[in-house]
Amino acid sequence: MGFNRISVRGASGLVVVLAASLGFGCSSQPKGQLSSAPSGSVANLMKERGLSEADVSAALQTYTPTGKKDEYYTFASGGHGGNLIVIGVPSMRILKYVGVFTPEPWQGYGYGDQSNEVLAGGKRFGKTMTWGDMHHPALSETGGDYDGEFLFVNDKANPRIAVIRLHDFITTQIVASELIQTDHGATFVTPNTEYVVESSQYPAPLGGGYAPIEDYEDKYRGAAIFWKFDREKGRIDPEQSFAMELPPYMQDLADAGKLASEGWVFINSFNTEMAYGGTLEGNPPMESGASQNDMDYMHVIDLKSAEKVAAQEGKTKKIAGMKVIPLKVANEEGLLHLIPEPKSPHGVDVTPDGKELVVSGKLDTHATVYSFEKIKGLIDAKKYEGKDAYGVPILPFEDSIRGQVEIGLGPLHTQYDDKGNAYTSVFIESTVAKWSLKDLKLTGKQKVHYNVGHIVAAEGDTVSPDGRYLIAMNKWAIDRFAGVGPLVPQNFQLIGIDSEPMQLLYDMPLPLGEPHYAQMIKADKIDPINIYKPAGMNPLTEERSLDAVKAGEERIERKPDGVHVYMTAVRSHFTPDIVRVKKGETVHMHITNVEQAHDATHGFTICSYNIHSSLEPGKHVDMTFVADREGTFPFYCTEFCSALHLEMAGYLLVEPG
Amino acid sequence: MGFNRISVRGASGLVVVLAASLGFGCSSQPKGQLSSAPSGSVANLMKERGLSEADVSAALQTYTPTGKKDEYYTFASGGHGGNLIVIGVPSMRILKYVGVFTPEPWQGYGYGDQSNEVLAGGKRFGKTMTWGDMHHPALSETGGDYDGEFLFVNDKANPRIAVIRLHDFITTQIVASELIQTDHGATFVTPNTEYVVESSQYPAPLGGGYAPIEDYEDKYRGAAIFWKFDREKGRIDPEQSFAMELPPYMQDLADAGKLASEGWVFINSFNTEMAYGGTLEGNPPMESGASQNDMDYMHVIDLKSAEKVAAQEGKTKKIAGMKVIPLKVANEEGLLHLIPEPKSPHGVDVTPDGKELVVSGKLDTHATVYSFEKIKGLIDAKKYEGKDAYGVPILPFEDSIRGQVEIGLGPLHTQYDDKGNAYTSVFIESTVAKWSLKDLKLTGKQKVHYNVGHIVAAEGDTVSPDGRYLIAMNKWAIDRFAGVGPLVPQNFQLIGIDSEPMQLLYDMPLPLGEPHYAQMIKADKIDPINIYKPAGMNPLTEERSLDAVKAGEERIERKPDGVHVYMTAVRSHFTPDIVRVKKGETVHMHITNVEQAHDATHGFTICSYNIHSSLEPGKHVDMTFVADREGTFPFYCTEFCSALHLEMAGYLLVEPG
Repeated sequence: MGFNRISVRGASGLVVVLAASLGFGCSSQPKGQLSSAPSGSVANLMKERGLSEADVSAALQTYTPTGKKDEYYTFASGGHGGNLIVIGVPSMRILKYVGVFTPEPWQGYGYGDQSNEVLAGGKRFGKTMTWGDMHHPALSETGGDYDGEFLFVNDKANPRIAVIRLHDFITTQIVASELIQTDHGATFVTPNTEYVVESSQYPAPLGGGYAPIEDYEDKYRGAAIFWKFDREKGRIDPEQSFAMELPPYMQDLADAGKLASEGWVFINSFNTEMAYGGTLEGNPPMESGASQNDMDYMHVIDLKSAEKVAAQEGKTKKIAGMKVIPLKVANEEGLLHLIPEPKSPHGVDVTPDGKELVVSGKLDTHATVYSFEKIKGLIDAKKYEGKDAYGVPILPFEDSIRGQVEIGLGPLHTQYDDKGNAYTSVFIESTVAKWSLKDLKLTGKQKVHYNVGHIVAAEGDTVSPDGRYLIAMNKWAIDRFAGVGPLVPQNFQLIGIDSEPMQLLYDMPLPLGEPHYAQMIKADKIDPINIYKPAGMNPLTEERSLDAVKAGEERIERKPDGVHVYMTAVRSHFTPDIVRVKKGETVHMHITNVEQAHDATHGFTICSYNIHSSLEPGKHVDMTFVADREGTFPFYCTEFCSALHLEMAGYLLVEPG
Repeated sequence: MGFNRISVRGASGLVVVLAASLGFGCSSQPKGQLSSAPSGSVANLMKERGLSEADVSAALQTYTPTGKKDEYYTFASGGHGGNLIVIGVPSMRILKYVGVFTPEPWQGYGYGDQSNEVLAGGKRFGKTMTWGDMHHPALSETGGDYDGEFLFVNDKANPRIAVIRLHDFITTQIVASELIQTDHGATFVTPNTEYVVESSQYPAPLGGGYAPIEDYEDKYRGAAIFWKFDREKGRIDPEQSFAMELPPYMQDLADAGKLASEGWVFINSFNTEMAYGGTLEGNPPMESGASQNDMDYMHVIDLKSAEKVAAQEGKTKKIAGMKVIPLKVANEEGLLHLIPEPKSPHGVDVTPDGKELVVSGKLDTHATVYSFEKIKGLIDAKKYEGKDAYGVPILPFEDSIRGQVEIGLGPLHTQYDDKGNAYTSVFIESTVAKWSLKDLKLTGKQKVHYNVGHIVAAEGDTVSPDGRYLIAMNKWAIDRFAGVGPLVPQNFQLIGIDSEPMQLLYDMPLPLGEPHYAQMIKADKIDPINIYKPAGMNPLTEERSLDAVKAGEERIERKPDGVHVYMTAVRSHFTPDIVRVKKGETVHMHITNVEQAHDATHGFTICSYNIHSSLEPGKHVDMTFVADREGTFPFYCTEFCSALHLEMAGYLLVEPG
């Protein structure tokens, strides 16, 4: 671009100058300069679309051109959608919904043998659950930092824990314990992912039995389950897992200690009043009964010692198949302590150095900063201010904290950056508050839209936060987006936190599900595969299936347990493409996608048989069903794979039995 | 902003000038100027993020700041995800996934009585299908233009049609006919939405019976169903609907005539070879057997006359409960004609004036432009080049067309703009071709990434296209996005079509499902409600439910059919919050969200009972289940509604029976 000398007055003039010099189309420019020009000058675009200067800056900080990759992945829980949401940052584009607790047919998740087996792992009282209320994802950690290998997440409604493998983004395991009837303090991992923590929310008789509500204080209990994760196998090992009985308070969020506090687990709670409602029976509603006390209790658990106690003969009880440390034993062994925390706390968040814990009370205006060193000192010195009704020692509040910060009305969750700042979501006033950990001073506030729940900063709950980006996970959106009826999306707002003041960068609607917590990880920490190799792999075993099929070896075999169809899929046909069975026969489909090209995915369904599989390159799937309807049922490839995709079809012929 | 005089050299210099004058943060500026400043100057941002000038233009054409609304809604089918995708344009943010063929728990769709009733309408052979393969959405039309009231969409795998109501974005009806075993030419509506067209793809014995594949030519058939839509009731009326038997070709996409061609329906087809595969039995695979002929057939149906014939005694047969016009009658009455169309056609798209039809052959390189006037003339003159094996008259190809345009390898679908241009997707070469309808000349091509299937332009299939925006619905993304494992998202690319040349504006990953077709409608044509009024409304009947509950009238009643719980939901409690039943009792939950504030949504679940409802403001839901497990089951609000949301809970106590 050549030399220019121009004189300009005011912003719009300058914008036009920019437009011209950038070669953007601009009526005052000779036609020649338009050839390289996308439509509209910056000035015109700002005018046409009503963009402010801040909007232009935000647009350029988030827009990610074709072929360029996002810098971070954000993994958000799908709330009562039951599936995991993978989001690219800063573009805020949703990259994938991963089927976890809710069957998802595009992925064939819950419509074929392999994934049905995964879902069956989460049975409750013998029944397979077909949805979940997903709350808190936890990335696997090494040394307190995300390692990008696995992700764990909970189902609050049908308490379960799922393991998602991040090299192929699939759910590989679901475990459930009937010890508890809901969870909420889940999932949180220890710094090297030895344990995945799941603690209950609404107390109930341990193991799922019946007890009159009037026996609440006697017979209802909370519990924390410590699921042992075997990284080698990539699986949770229920046999090596154990739990601890807790008082019938409503345990809420939790966090695992790190560095200075490694080996400890912190779980806060509300309803230490032990209210259980009964509005039609003359009691106050739960939320007022549960909001009487000015202080509730944080649970401080010595996990390292608990692990040793759980390993000893006679120290645990088996309840619903789970090894449980009774409260009595926990007290005798000094495994559990309580500390008062301000009114109806929600989040407890360990600082990056592991030395402190920040707790916020929903009905308080402060963030309270606890010192782990002080807590440890009080525990070692057995300096108690008393015990609760269940004999759990209570540490004095004033001696446990370093101080408090006045935040605003309804503080909930805290995240951290790389400069010693903490960020706390403030639900009632709809802001994100920024404050200095060092001197406990509020330094800024960013308005959000509206009613922010959790927030997530880049690696903001690890030992080494990145700063840069923070997402406010707003519960209400109201007027932010084009209307889609009474059920309104949530609103994720991306905020730049390296600038001073914070800068609102992007509003992102959540089209499906209500995320609670999320974690944001550097993209280069995740190393996904593109194909399954060798062809014929069963993703769950990561080995070639014994029923895998090679091109040329396709066949149909009748065995005592039914008809076995060994089928290959390749652009653009299934072999065999005609399958003849008799009504009532059990059909075992064994299908291998023999392709090894990135994105050469096929899908398989048989019309009206309610089965479906996604066949990524090299993947092998099995599907079993009874041919219980006589007739002529087309099957076809459901994933547009080639110019002759529609011809990739065949027939299941079910002859009269 | 004050007066500046500056001299600048080159683009980056100018950009910094802009940055400074816009008050963007810029190291050379005095701190004072930073206060109002978002982070980074435009120049720095372009450099940091590797943005080109075209990228800046694209970013500013798509970025939609907080509180600003998108200009268009795009409704995309969810493919084998089975749910409808609502996208805002130009931001390309997904606003909602609407539950349609696949249960969706966030919306409570398929987890309560009302929506279970909707899903039951789509039973196949007595079984409720729990997923669908959604292909082609059709917005309701008035005078050939979108009216924004309803949307219809099909399930190819378990042939069904769904009705989605756009004032609250919910599925209100699903209908299924066992006449056909798959569909693909669905859904397409007549210009005033009198009929919703659903035609079959893979031939089978009509009605779902068995017939040997060797009897394919004799016993297998296609069919087109014309579902009558009652706009007053907002429902399809199966009693007033009828079908037409078609030859056992593989009917593909369809379109309804408009203006000049109103009252006619066009359905193309491939596999006029009537191949049915049989690779293990010595036959060629389907896709080669089906690709022998150089020409296949377009079906031209005189719907207005067919409607009259269907109303006459003795002219139709009932098959699987559907009134069907047999091929013989269709021939006798002159309701059906065939016209040759180039090799393995896919899309048939009527021009905005209704005077012409554009057909593209997957194995051809042309777009072929048929003249309806010529077709009508040939039919009136009975000028046939012969009849097919089923006695259907064939019109001469050369006399039916105005001409052809050389497009490229693998043309599929065509859309239109407001300036007389047509746009055709070219699958194999991964481009969108722009050509002039008037003189049939190719005028431009836009590369896309990769393997584009359908395309959608703003109101691009109506009588009055808008131009402006076009979305290339690319089947493969390969390297476009941060990796998410072997199952890769689709890639929607937004293209500006008012500029010359076309401009690529945005790459959008599809996180869930594989969309096929989409339609883009002006946002101001849709008028969504924010709440259900009066409180207690059953959205399906749009009337206050007889079981609706008012505050103060909550109660639990025992009736012969079980325990009826009349419950209200309001921030932050359910009343009643304790429900006592005996094991084995049937429980009928009747829950009204008595709130009338926008976005004041609650959710309701009972742990481990696998039920869930979304309770938008004013909505009433019913849930019925058997209390088959003795125990203590918490219930709670699943939608974060207030600071005391977690306290919005209660207990279902199932006492021993």
